[in-house]
Amino acid sequence: MTTQRKPRGPYRKGVRRREQILDTALEVFAGRGDAPLQEIADRVGLSQAGVLHYFGSREELLLAVLRRRDTLDLAACEGSDGPGEAVARTVRHNMDQPGLVRLFVALSAAATDPSHPAHGFFADRYRDLTATIVRGFESGRRSGAVRDDEDAEHMARLLLAVSDGLQLQWLLDPSLDMAALVETFDRLCAPPNDG
Amino acid sequence: MTTQRKPRGPYRKGVRRREQILDTALEVFAGRGDAPLQEIADRVGLSQAGVLHYFGSREELLLAVLRRRDTLDLAACEGSDGPGEAVARTVRHNMDQPGLVRLFVALSAAATDPSHPAHGFFADRYRDLTATIVRGFESGRRSGAVRDDEDAEHMARLLLAVSDGLQLQWLLDPSLDMAALVETFDRLCAPPNDG
Repeated sequence: MTTQRKPRGPYRKGVRRREQILDTALEVFAGRGDAPLQEIADRVGLSQAGVLHYFGSREELLLAVLRRRDTLDLAACEGSDGPGEAVARTVRHNMDQPGLVRLFVALSAAATDPSHPAHGFFADRYRDLTATIVRGFESGRRSGAVRDDEDAEHMARLLLAVSDGLQLQWLLDPSLDMAALVETFDRLCAPPNDG
Repeated sequence: MTTQRKPRGPYRKGVRRREQILDTALEVFAGRGDAPLQEIADRVGLSQAGVLHYFGSREELLLAVLRRRDTLDLAACEGSDGPGEAVARTVRHNMDQPGLVRLFVALSAAATDPSHPAHGFFADRYRDLTATIVRGFESGRRSGAVRDDEDAEHMARLLLAVSDGLQLQWLLDPSLDMAALVETFDRLCAPPNDG
């Protein structure tokens, strides 16, 4: 039997402080994808150097913000009726956070360069999300909600592509209803003889 | 009756020179999305300032490269069997030009900022391409190749999103077969009772 120790004392305080900065950064970035570090520093009562102490660099902070956002999004998808609905729910939430969408679009594009510090994060992210969505589609197949005439991994990759591609179109034309479009995609993945 | 005059003399020479620079830039960028201007200048026997003289700025040159690529891609899609096949064909061609894909991903992400010089180009691009694809899907409906239970504009927006989103995933994992994935999407848009 292993016992997992909870962090104590100064270390635990450091972890809590880091979480607090992350929550603040997430709030600040929700409104503006290019928010200056000073704004986050001001809100947590630290200098810019003080904030970076907890993350190492501005890029690491941005990455931590996107990681946390993924964690919160995944948690918010609990209980949703399949991957399509889960992504539609996330996308609907994103429509209230243009700054985070802008941050994601900018950082994911930059990270396609193999020498970018976030390259590994994004490569892992798509591999892991694909695997999660494939499991969701396979489960949907067993219950008859998902068509079985197309490869589940293909549909998973397409769902992720739809979600990313729509963000670009939405930033260029905010009248676009991204969530409704994801719901349309989800219906395309339903069994062909439905309805 | 109107007669369209062809450009003559020094002006025509300028147009030809600009075309030649564009062709060269397209070749250079096909290999490397971040090719230095000097490389293009060397290949056309001009200084960097000489190249920029024809475009105004580096950003205008990049934009002209993407415009020309769109024109060539559209021309290459002539005679294809519907929008899905046309996009699959373009995407297959893109897989041989990683540098242009990288350039597109970087510039389209940057252009989501309304103050970016390419913002208008990209906003127009998605509006115009959506209209073209809608016409293609509507024609496919009439011939029975496209399902009629989903909105054609939704499917058009999704097809563009798929194409953009897959580029991101492909740059992170070049083993991905983008064209096969677009073909899968195209089959999702076929009539539900097919086969």
